[in-house]
Amino acid sequence: MTSTRSEIIICRHTYDEYIEMIKAFHGHIAPGMVLGGFMVDLAYRNRPQGEFFDAICETRACLPDAIQLLTPCTVGNGWLRIIDLGRFALSFFEKYTGNGVRVYVDSSKLDGWPEIKTFLFKLKSKKEQDSEVLIREINLARASILAVQKVAVDLGAIKSSRRDTFAVCLGCGEGFPKADGDICLGCKGKAPYLSCARTGLQKD
Amino acid sequence: MTSTRSEIIICRHTYDEYIEMIKAFHGHIAPGMVLGGFMVDLAYRNRPQGEFFDAICETRACLPDAIQLLTPCTVGNGWLRIIDLGRFALSFFEKYTGNGVRVYVDSSKLDGWPEIKTFLFKLKSKKEQDSEVLIREINLARASILAVQKVAVDLGAIKSSRRDTFAVCLGCGEGFPKADGDICLGCKGKAPYLSCARTGLQKD
Repeated sequence: MTSTRSEIIICRHTYDEYIEMIKAFHGHIAPGMVLGGFMVDLAYRNRPQGEFFDAICETRACLPDAIQLLTPCTVGNGWLRIIDLGRFALSFFEKYTGNGVRVYVDSSKLDGWPEIKTFLFKLKSKKEQDSEVLIREINLARASILAVQKVAVDLGAIKSSRRDTFAVCLGCGEGFPKADGDICLGCKGKAPYLSCARTGLQKD
Repeated sequence: MTSTRSEIIICRHTYDEYIEMIKAFHGHIAPGMVLGGFMVDLAYRNRPQGEFFDAICETRACLPDAIQLLTPCTVGNGWLRIIDLGRFALSFFEKYTGNGVRVYVDSSKLDGWPEIKTFLFKLKSKKEQDSEVLIREINLARASILAVQKVAVDLGAIKSSRRDTFAVCLGCGEGFPKADGDICLGCKGKAPYLSCARTGLQKD
């Protein structure tokens, strides 16, 4: 806890390198990204044996970006699965056995860190919270407020065979997973659009 | 269609630059990432007026990474929402009005592009498909197989107020959104773990 910021290493990156990565990808230095960096680093140091690991992120807020920046796992390559349980936690697991580790914030260790507690439990609005003081606290607390546990991931529960075969939807005419039925989920009312006009717009 | 690969610009990046970005982030040159680049570029050229736009991706496969690489929208900063309808399509919309554009693959235009059709409808296994020939076809077809439409996004449907207040879960002791009840979704059986041992592992 006495080491300076310049001594911090997050998944082989210096602290300042990681901050630059955050700015370039996430757009701004969000406290959740800084905390997330320490969480990914801790999980990585305890990662399961084996050549490949996949990731699960239990929240959509910030943490998925820390995982995408610091590991080979992204949403689009399928190695990161977001299962939004609303908990600020992540797991790395060996993809064939499901054995892995989970890193979470240990609520019982937050009493000495008022800004972090306020941030995680949203005790103040974003505007009221001093982001600089909060990030300074995160940099002091680091892994001391985190906990690691062993997990066995239920591979059957997270595997999707829905995308095995595709068909043309009788509703919209687009390709969609046959497993969804005769028409796609969009045409079944799951699309988030109030209107969707089939008017051609500029293409070249 | 007569222009060469070196003339291709994808969201202000040269084709080769974009390929390098794919390798660094996504890990390998997936055909869906190349096709996704042309889709994001087309959507971006038709993006809604206004200072900010958010993104919706209708699939989890590849396309979210093309969006994250080529726009400021990421999963973790909340500007990219994945609503998995199983359609290879995306929307950009103005965040206050919901007005936007949607880009999708026009199935009726795929007959001249057998490799792309085979890829999108999974008519062959990944192993059987020649990825080099497929990517060459994508680079020739570009936006000619795509369509753009105007959409009005249902802002009420995609907004989540679930994360407004947090509490300590009576089950696991972790922070979670109060809106989920007395215990978190993980403790309600939604966690993808067969076991979860609260044993401390290495932290420093």
